[in-house]
Amino acid sequence: MAIDRYESRAVKLHEQLKGKIEVTNRVEIRNEEDLSLVYTPGVAEVCKAIEAEPERMNDLTARGSMIGVITDGTAVLGLGDIGPKAAMPVMEGKCMLFKAFSGLNAFPICLDEKDPEKLISIIKAMAPTFAGINLEDISAPRCFEIEARLKRELDIPVFHDDQHGTAIVVLAGLINALKLTGRTREKTKIVINGAGAAGISIARLLLSAGFTDITLVSLEGIVAEGEEWLNSSQKEMAIWTNVDNKRGTLNDVIEGADVFIGVSGPNALRPMQVKRMAERAIVFALANPVPEIYPNDALRAGAEVVATGRSDFPNQVNNLLAFPGIFKGAIRSGATDITVDMKLAAAEAIASLITDDELAAWYIIPGSLEQKVADVVADAVEAEVHKYEGGMKDGSS
Amino acid sequence: MAIDRYESRAVKLHEQLKGKIEVTNRVEIRNEEDLSLVYTPGVAEVCKAIEAEPERMNDLTARGSMIGVITDGTAVLGLGDIGPKAAMPVMEGKCMLFKAFSGLNAFPICLDEKDPEKLISIIKAMAPTFAGINLEDISAPRCFEIEARLKRELDIPVFHDDQHGTAIVVLAGLINALKLTGRTREKTKIVINGAGAAGISIARLLLSAGFTDITLVSLEGIVAEGEEWLNSSQKEMAIWTNVDNKRGTLNDVIEGADVFIGVSGPNALRPMQVKRMAERAIVFALANPVPEIYPNDALRAGAEVVATGRSDFPNQVNNLLAFPGIFKGAIRSGATDITVDMKLAAAEAIASLITDDELAAWYIIPGSLEQKVADVVADAVEAEVHKYEGGMKDGSS
Repeated sequence: MAIDRYESRAVKLHEQLKGKIEVTNRVEIRNEEDLSLVYTPGVAEVCKAIEAEPERMNDLTARGSMIGVITDGTAVLGLGDIGPKAAMPVMEGKCMLFKAFSGLNAFPICLDEKDPEKLISIIKAMAPTFAGINLEDISAPRCFEIEARLKRELDIPVFHDDQHGTAIVVLAGLINALKLTGRTREKTKIVINGAGAAGISIARLLLSAGFTDITLVSLEGIVAEGEEWLNSSQKEMAIWTNVDNKRGTLNDVIEGADVFIGVSGPNALRPMQVKRMAERAIVFALANPVPEIYPNDALRAGAEVVATGRSDFPNQVNNLLAFPGIFKGAIRSGATDITVDMKLAAAEAIASLITDDELAAWYIIPGSLEQKVADVVADAVEAEVHKYEGGMKDGSS
Repeated sequence: MAIDRYESRAVKLHEQLKGKIEVTNRVEIRNEEDLSLVYTPGVAEVCKAIEAEPERMNDLTARGSMIGVITDGTAVLGLGDIGPKAAMPVMEGKCMLFKAFSGLNAFPICLDEKDPEKLISIIKAMAPTFAGINLEDISAPRCFEIEARLKRELDIPVFHDDQHGTAIVVLAGLINALKLTGRTREKTKIVINGAGAAGISIARLLLSAGFTDITLVSLEGIVAEGEEWLNSSQKEMAIWTNVDNKRGTLNDVIEGADVFIGVSGPNALRPMQVKRMAERAIVFALANPVPEIYPNDALRAGAEVVATGRSDFPNQVNNLLAFPGIFKGAIRSGATDITVDMKLAAAEAIASLITDDELAAWYIIPGSLEQKVADVVADAVEAEVHKYEGGMKDGSS
């Protein structure tokens, strides 16, 4: 495969760098006077100013633009529970992306703790350090409870990117794919293959966006009320999805489906199954690096639009399109949470980057490296925040 | 006072900077290929390499040179318990000093948690993120237990700078002051005024260095066995200090004292008291910004050597002389702890920076901003580590 060539080069590059990020000083310390201004005795006055008005912390320290990229290493990429140390290269990479695409600072925190209650209290205790928290690579279903609790109990934005990042970009792609194939959200029949963190989050966001006919399929079968193997999140989803209350496997729901969204594994969708889907079918085969079906196979089997998670095919679903702009907009607007409406606004903004003239089966999702994406998303997120809050906040959170 | 002029300028500078530190990328992300090397898919191979050999983490990520500067904001400078948010300007400043003087990266973590047990478990959970931990501005006596437990339970260097940084530089200054005034450690009678974190740590280090006649005095009185007001650390010190088992106040022990070390408060030592000290008395008046006695007053009262905590007088006791080199040496040598012997080696190294020719009453401690200090200290610390470990370690910790 084409991506194999990166493997040894990536290790070599990491060996050379000994750290993809570093902490740098924004002013020099050349003499006693400099020292007296950035450290003692001058710094005491800055401390007192924050003690008197805690919200000034975001203006007087780096905290105002500092995102914590936090993991317990339990679900790293497709590698699974490889632990907090082995997760660090991904977290550092994520911090790089924050800096490069949003201008925000981000610092990686890899935690040697798996108990959800303890993780929640550790992350809560770190809140004075960060303006926002990006949870990363935490396994399902633990990640749902951890994020939900932190969102409720902290007054800074908390965002589990594995859940929402992919969901937002999937929605953006769907918005354009529906436009291209002349569908409405209400009448589009969607099958999501994979009922882990990503699959459930996609289903939730699509329901919020006005889609009504969604069926989740896991390795155990269709997510349906009463199935014994459902975890708590799947139980909740069984209520809101699978309107025909079907049971069985992917084969039992693929017939006539308008959209297949795969967040499962290699070759999970066969060409025979694509043939049974509706005319002008939409296939999002997001497993990485080997998708549920390769684009050419899906197209030959009759699909009209295909998206994958890979950069070497058209229509890459890459959460890089979402998280830098979402945090940039949330931080800039002083939002204390990242709401569903902010996520929907982000998806619409990403979709809007492709004009009607440009829109094509091979171009429903903008390129991940386009620098303007984050700003367009940030503006949309900020507008959404101000719409509901009725005005500018002071940046404190 | 001369230092007042820094106050408003310091606040202005902090407002302009909005953060004295930032997290920066060590390589650019210009295209898909860059992205594939620093992030997915290439990064997966780096994760797998660390999963297979966790000690490679320090070579493949920034963790190998990353110090956590961690506080709960309970004893910030002389300001007391101002909380974790108001503590951030000091922590950021400390991180700057790490970078500027040791080349190590350092990141500030301000924790919203005061329970010692919880603090210990939070900091332990963060160990995969840091190569070493600098505890800062944690109140006594909690700081003793927290540091002791972390040292025992973690395999990376842990160092509470407020305890040991000052103690190491005091010892360095004393080594030179004794040389100048012709004293031996065994026969030098020392009074330490202040029995908090700094006072107790100074006493401990001086005992380890071979001083035998030390008396601690707190606001409640002389630290003596059986006193009801002693906290657990003071109780322990009562056993090892105050050999004549005196009771009372500073006045009851100042008679004939060779050395006064003040880590207490403004004007705590009166000229009359200096006059009652031994000939060629040594006075370390370290309270900041107003010392226990101003140098001129001490000298006029008969002291021969005076040190303070201020940069505008000779002989500044500044922990900046110690912590950058100590961490640099500890990290470079792969030490898993910072031992008493490493601290003693650091003190000797700092003292050695002043040659016999240079040594004078107004020059017993090198200038804090001399760049060579950290390297000399790091070399001494590293030599100490290798002496006891019998060879180079592999850098893992």
